[in-house]
Amino acid sequence: MGLVCEKGRLWVLDQTLLPNKEEWLRADSPPQMASFILDLKVRGAPLIGVAAAAALARCAEEGASWEEFKGAAMLLRRARPTAVNLMAAVDRMLAACRPAGGKAGGKTALAERACAEAERVFDEDVALCRRIAERGARFIQDGESVLTHCNAGGLATAGIGTAVGVIRAAHESGKRVHVFVDETRPLLQGARLTAWELESLKIPYTIVCDNMAGSLMRRGKIRGIFVGADRIARNGDFANKIGTYPLAVLARHHGVPFYCAAPVTTVDLAIETGERIPIEERSPEEVRRDWGPRRARVYNPAFDVTPAELLEAMILDVGVVRRADLLKGRLSSRVTLKPPARARR
Amino acid sequence: MGLVCEKGRLWVLDQTLLPNKEEWLRADSPPQMASFILDLKVRGAPLIGVAAAAALARCAEEGASWEEFKGAAMLLRRARPTAVNLMAAVDRMLAACRPAGGKAGGKTALAERACAEAERVFDEDVALCRRIAERGARFIQDGESVLTHCNAGGLATAGIGTAVGVIRAAHESGKRVHVFVDETRPLLQGARLTAWELESLKIPYTIVCDNMAGSLMRRGKIRGIFVGADRIARNGDFANKIGTYPLAVLARHHGVPFYCAAPVTTVDLAIETGERIPIEERSPEEVRRDWGPRRARVYNPAFDVTPAELLEAMILDVGVVRRADLLKGRLSSRVTLKPPARARR
Repeated sequence: MGLVCEKGRLWVLDQTLLPNKEEWLRADSPPQMASFILDLKVRGAPLIGVAAAAALARCAEEGASWEEFKGAAMLLRRARPTAVNLMAAVDRMLAACRPAGGKAGGKTALAERACAEAERVFDEDVALCRRIAERGARFIQDGESVLTHCNAGGLATAGIGTAVGVIRAAHESGKRVHVFVDETRPLLQGARLTAWELESLKIPYTIVCDNMAGSLMRRGKIRGIFVGADRIARNGDFANKIGTYPLAVLARHHGVPFYCAAPVTTVDLAIETGERIPIEERSPEEVRRDWGPRRARVYNPAFDVTPAELLEAMILDVGVVRRADLLKGRLSSRVTLKPPARARR
Repeated sequence: MGLVCEKGRLWVLDQTLLPNKEEWLRADSPPQMASFILDLKVRGAPLIGVAAAAALARCAEEGASWEEFKGAAMLLRRARPTAVNLMAAVDRMLAACRPAGGKAGGKTALAERACAEAERVFDEDVALCRRIAERGARFIQDGESVLTHCNAGGLATAGIGTAVGVIRAAHESGKRVHVFVDETRPLLQGARLTAWELESLKIPYTIVCDNMAGSLMRRGKIRGIFVGADRIARNGDFANKIGTYPLAVLARHHGVPFYCAAPVTTVDLAIETGERIPIEERSPEEVRRDWGPRRARVYNPAFDVTPAELLEAMILDVGVVRRADLLKGRLSSRVTLKPPARARR
C-alpha cells in the first residue's frame, strides 16, 4: 500500500507526512531508499524488506554490476538494525542473484533475476498477510473492542497488514469491531497511520494515548490486543514498537488475550531469545521536539522485547502457535515446516 | 512556586507555556482564576486549592459581599472535578469566613478573615510539602534511579512539591539520585514541567515516553516510582494523572516499589473507594492536535485510579502508611489523628 513500481519507476508513500498529506517520493537508488527507511518515510518490518528488494531490482535494471549490487545490498541491510525482514529480504535477493558457479552472469541476467525475485518477495508478502488475517480473524468476536499499537497495517506491508489485517478480516466477515488505537509516542504511527487506515476502511476506532490502555483494560473495555513484530526469536520472544511490552504486561494482569501477528519472514531462527535482539536507539529530538528543555537528556529506544510467555498466541501465516506450544519451543518446527525460500546469511 | 501575591496583586505562572516561556498572569478575579484552572495554566492538585483560596481572599479584599463571596466560591469549586484539594480549600474558606451567628459581619471583617485563612492555606501547604519530603526521602538510596510521572513538584504546590519534593530531599541530603521523567501525554507535564524543575534543581534526569517505563523496569533500571495524587479515597485507592495506574501494574509485575506522596488535604474521607472518584474527561483536541485525522474519535480521561493494593506505601505529611495498613483500612485513622483544620462540606 505504501510502495508502487510503475513503468520502471519505484515510488514510496512518505509515511511521515500522513495523514495530513499524501506525497509519493521517487526512490531512485538503494542509497535513496536506505535514507527513506532510516527516516521512517518507508516503515513497517515487512514493507522495508519488500522495499529493499524492489530498490535492488531497480538498481540491477539500471545496469549495476554484481559488485555494485552487493554494495547496494549491504547499504540497505544496515538501514535499520531491529527488523529482521529487511536483512532476510536483502539476503534472499543476494542468494537469488548470485552468479552461478562463481561466474559473472552479465548485467542482463542479474537484472532479470533481481526483478523476478523482488516480484516474488512482493507477491509473497501480499499472500502472507492474507493468510495471517484469515487465521487471526476468529480471535475477534462480534461486538468486541480490541486494541492495536503502532501501525501493523497495509502501510507496514505490501498487503493488507498483519495485526490490522486480522482486524480487517474480522470486520469484512461481518463482525462489528471497534478498535482502540494507541497513539504510539514518539512518532505517532497509531494516531497518524493506523487511524488513517481504519478511517479509509470504515472500521470504527478511537485514538487513546499510550498511557490510557491500562485503565481501559481495568474497566473491561478491551477484549483483545493485536500487534505486529519486527523480529521474532526462536523461543517466541519478539521485538516490536516501543510500548508493546507494557501492553503485554497489562494484558496479563487483566486477563486480556494478547496476540502477535506476523509473517514467517519476521522469525529469526538464528536468535535464541529476545534478549539477543538488537534494539535501535533513535534521536532525542524525536521525543524532545519543541517542548522539553533544550539540554534535556532523553532515552529513545525504538523497540522493546515481549517475552513469549505473555502471548496468548502468535498468529503466523503458517499457523497459529499457542502459548503452551511456544513455551515448549515449537515455534521453530512450525516455521521450518513450510518456510518461504530463505537465503543463507 | 507558580503563584505569588504581591502588593495586593495575585499572579500565577502560566504552566502551559513552560519551559519555553515564563509568563506571569494577573489573576484578577475568581472567574479569571477558575478559567486559568480549567485551562491548566494553574495546575497541580495542592496548588489549585491554594490558588482558589488566594482568589477568594482577593475578591473579599476588593469588597465582595458574603453573597458574592459564596458565588465566587461555588464557581471555583466546580473548575475541576477530580482533585479534591480544590473543593476542600474552597469549603475551608467558606467555613472560616461564614458570618458568625447568621449575622453579616461586614465587608471588612470578611476581607480580614479571608486573607488570614488564605495565608494559612498557603503556609500549611508549604509545611505539608516539607514534611512529606522528609518522610519520603528515606525510600531512595544513594545511587538509585527512580521514576516520576506528570508533575508533582514545586509547580504543583505552594511548597517544594510532593513526589518531586521527596526526590529533592533525597538529593539535598547528599544522595546521588537520577530521575526518569515520564513525558506524560497528552499535555506533557513531565517533559515540560518536571524536566524544567529538575534542571533548575540540578538533579540529573532523563525524559522518556510513557510507553518506555516498562522496558526500563524489565532491565532493572528503575528502583522506585514516586507519584502525587489528585484525590485519595478512604481505602487508599487514589486518582492521579492518566498513566499512573499502568505504571503501578508494571511496578508490581517487576517488583519495583511504588509510592504515592500527598498531603492530607488530598484525602477525601467521604469517598469509600477509588471507583467513586469522578474522572474528568477533557477535549479530544488535546490528543488529536495536528496529527490525527480531523474526524478521529478520541478518548481523553485526565486521570486514572490506582488501587491501594498496588502501593508499597502512601507517604503523607502525617506519616507513612504501608500497604498492609492501607489494606486494613488504617488510612482514615492516620488522617483523622492529626488533621489540618478542615471545613464542613
